[in-house]
Amino acid sequence: MITTDALVENVHFLSERMSAADVGWRALASNLSDIAAMGARPVLVTVALGVARTTHEEWILRCYEGMADFAKRSGVAIAGGDIVRAPSLFITIAAVGEVRTSNRKTRDAARAGDVLAVTGPLGASRAGLEILVDRPDLENDGRFVDALAAYRRPHARLREGARFGASSNVHAMMDISDGLSTDLHRMCAASGVGALVDVSQLPIAACARSFAEVAGRDPLRYALGGGEDFELLVAIAPRAFRAVAAGFERAFDRPLHGIGVVTPEPHLTIRDAVGVRALERTGWESLG
Amino acid sequence: MITTDALVENVHFLSERMSAADVGWRALASNLSDIAAMGARPVLVTVALGVARTTHEEWILRCYEGMADFAKRSGVAIAGGDIVRAPSLFITIAAVGEVRTSNRKTRDAARAGDVLAVTGPLGASRAGLEILVDRPDLENDGRFVDALAAYRRPHARLREGARFGASSNVHAMMDISDGLSTDLHRMCAASGVGALVDVSQLPIAACARSFAEVAGRDPLRYALGGGEDFELLVAIAPRAFRAVAAGFERAFDRPLHGIGVVTPEPHLTIRDAVGVRALERTGWESLG
Repeated sequence: MITTDALVENVHFLSERMSAADVGWRALASNLSDIAAMGARPVLVTVALGVARTTHEEWILRCYEGMADFAKRSGVAIAGGDIVRAPSLFITIAAVGEVRTSNRKTRDAARAGDVLAVTGPLGASRAGLEILVDRPDLENDGRFVDALAAYRRPHARLREGARFGASSNVHAMMDISDGLSTDLHRMCAASGVGALVDVSQLPIAACARSFAEVAGRDPLRYALGGGEDFELLVAIAPRAFRAVAAGFERAFDRPLHGIGVVTPEPHLTIRDAVGVRALERTGWESLG
Repeated sequence: MITTDALVENVHFLSERMSAADVGWRALASNLSDIAAMGARPVLVTVALGVARTTHEEWILRCYEGMADFAKRSGVAIAGGDIVRAPSLFITIAAVGEVRTSNRKTRDAARAGDVLAVTGPLGASRAGLEILVDRPDLENDGRFVDALAAYRRPHARLREGARFGASSNVHAMMDISDGLSTDLHRMCAASGVGALVDVSQLPIAACARSFAEVAGRDPLRYALGGGEDFELLVAIAPRAFRAVAAGFERAFDRPLHGIGVVTPEPHLTIRDAVGVRALERTGWESLG
């Protein structure tokens, strides 16, 4: 299979607040996250770079270095490219992956009763972005190292995705790129189901909690609305969940977080200490 | 193999002087021309579209229609895409082609003594561009229908490229995207050879000649410097040239134009009625 994604300066990334290498790394990671979400192995990518008149050659080289760094770690070849002049920076990556047809996962196969799970804590990347944009004074604060790293150098859950791909108990899978609430809505709409999320089970990144406290915001908002952590969201057959989670923890030395269940009624709800209420799509605009 | 190309508004195309469908067609044609130049068959493409806030949905639909039109004629599937907001329009296409390794052609294998040939008349696309930019009063002049069509709806020489790919007598191949003089320099530099072009053999598009006359310019400039006709430039074993050209004419019902020879000395020269002189790279800036 093949995917493509374009990232545009000031829409998808902030070249003034990130190093060129981080921009390159991040662009490739977000593309390979799509491959991970299908249960596929990335094979090669092509990179087309639009650069402004004001872009220095040094910036371009560093950007490629960041990409090459991530490519090497992911076992993917950069197979071709193009550099063109543009009014502002953009990076378009096309990624070719391979996956056995029977292993290929999609977002439209969640079934009522499935356990919903995510592969890691959420909200760190959003916290990192807000620090860069609104609170540069916190950039060197030790509490937020993980938040900044999550924004600048995200990972794509390639091994996790391949593992889920090989399991027939994983019914549906996608990556969380626009925030859990938005992406869960997408999975449910595509599958013709609903979901009930349990707040007490939701893994909120510690750095997102800390930042929410500093910023005087609800930490839940980061976990539900903060995109670009690139964790995977999966719907797993209920009888198999315990075994799948145990296998995951053995393989990756961290937990698989069950966060709720798939419901037959096509409504998204969330349960907290107060009760059950509708789960709104609370994704932020990309850099809003 | 896989290739990628990005086209940016006002750098590579003029959205104000072309229909959206033409922009889409042209973007795909220029990408598939790269595939043709390798002797490959295009299999699938992905399309990433960057659209400005001011771009209408209608424009996007028409642009895809133009692309789909060309895709259908070329037997290629549009396998995926992305649409993002951007400061101005851009289109990045990645194209996957297949070619037997032994058939794959490159630009770096021209040999001294080879006959240089092109698959069709040159200069029409450049004339069309100049009409759109400088002489809109000529847009409906019957003499320039071919020039405008060459600019708006170029062809990729896919069947021609595949035919050359299958011939061991074709040593080197590339598409002429930046003008013959520029691309021939590239082929010669990559192959470590030179070339002598014979002006009397150079096929200049009739509409380019007409426009040159109207514009008071040397028609040769269009044939040497006008890019984006997407004809193929090939270096063919001298003993085989006659047979290759005859086969080409039988297959495509038009001539293969021998335009000169590859020389061992790494200099590019051109011979006209006056004598032999250096062949300068006379490509224009994209929209210069």
